[in-house]
Amino acid sequence: MRILGIDPGYAILGYGIVDMKGNRFSVCGYGAITTDSSMEMPDRLKHLYTNLMDIIQEFEPDVVSIEELFFNTNSKTAILVGQARGVAILACANSGLEIREYTPLEIKMGLAGYGRAEKKQIQFMVKTILNLNEVPKPDDTADALAAAICHGNCAGHLSKVERYKALGK
Amino acid sequence: MRILGIDPGYAILGYGIVDMKGNRFSVCGYGAITTDSSMEMPDRLKHLYTNLMDIIQEFEPDVVSIEELFFNTNSKTAILVGQARGVAILACANSGLEIREYTPLEIKMGLAGYGRAEKKQIQFMVKTILNLNEVPKPDDTADALAAAICHGNCAGHLSKVERYKALGK
Repeated sequence: MRILGIDPGYAILGYGIVDMKGNRFSVCGYGAITTDSSMEMPDRLKHLYTNLMDIIQEFEPDVVSIEELFFNTNSKTAILVGQARGVAILACANSGLEIREYTPLEIKMGLAGYGRAEKKQIQFMVKTILNLNEVPKPDDTADALAAAICHGNCAGHLSKVERYKALGK
Repeated sequence: MRILGIDPGYAILGYGIVDMKGNRFSVCGYGAITTDSSMEMPDRLKHLYTNLMDIIQEFEPDVVSIEELFFNTNSKTAILVGQARGVAILACANSGLEIREYTPLEIKMGLAGYGRAEKKQIQFMVKTILNLNEVPKPDDTADALAAAICHGNCAGHLSKVERYKALGK
């Protein structure tokens, strides 16, 4: 199973692609699509969409894992990030991909086993699980890889549950 | 000048197309793209995008006028509406259209001449300016037409200012 993880944002959109075979993960690629603040918002959204479509075409993932967003700040920021998130989801939907959403808590649980894990711990887990030499930068990229791994772990767990069900246990 | 006005939302996206010749407006079409709550969010966003692209192809507007959003409610709503707004802006950007944004205050000023105008007054102005028999329903449609008229008035005003400048006044 090839999973595309996305950490949505309008200035930086992190992405990471991982393969999962059995319980083992390997990394296929990761990075960030960035837009400059000098660009008009329609151009920024178009840039995010076009580049994400290119990444989907290049890596051909089976499924997308994207973090749900929560904000304690003003609604203006939430709307701007929401716009970028909408465009990212559209790129995946227009590519016919299955899309799964996870809360920050679920991603922390999925990686570190407990919901109060700190950012550094999650980044360390991403580095370790994917056998990387260093933590991917920027943070948005590590977050995207974390979302991808979270889905792999959850999907693996689900399929195990389904197997048990099939066995009548 | 043909103007497409948009009132963005994920359950109801209002749209309205008006022609402006001199200081006179005429309506070309209006309506709402709706998505059912039983649909998954990626499908809702795809539905909004596809239908808005069809409307742009059918009416071939010169410019798009879209309301800026403000929320006093929780950020979750703001993110969801932001997603729909992002997809709407992307449809316009991918169609090569010029996009202008107006605050609710600017739209009220542009239609009723003062920023504290109530919703019913704006709807009455839309009906009167476009010579309609009744106020378009749902409200999102009337709001979209209001955004379109606002841009027409502002653009007309700007070109008048520019003419004065050209005359050295």
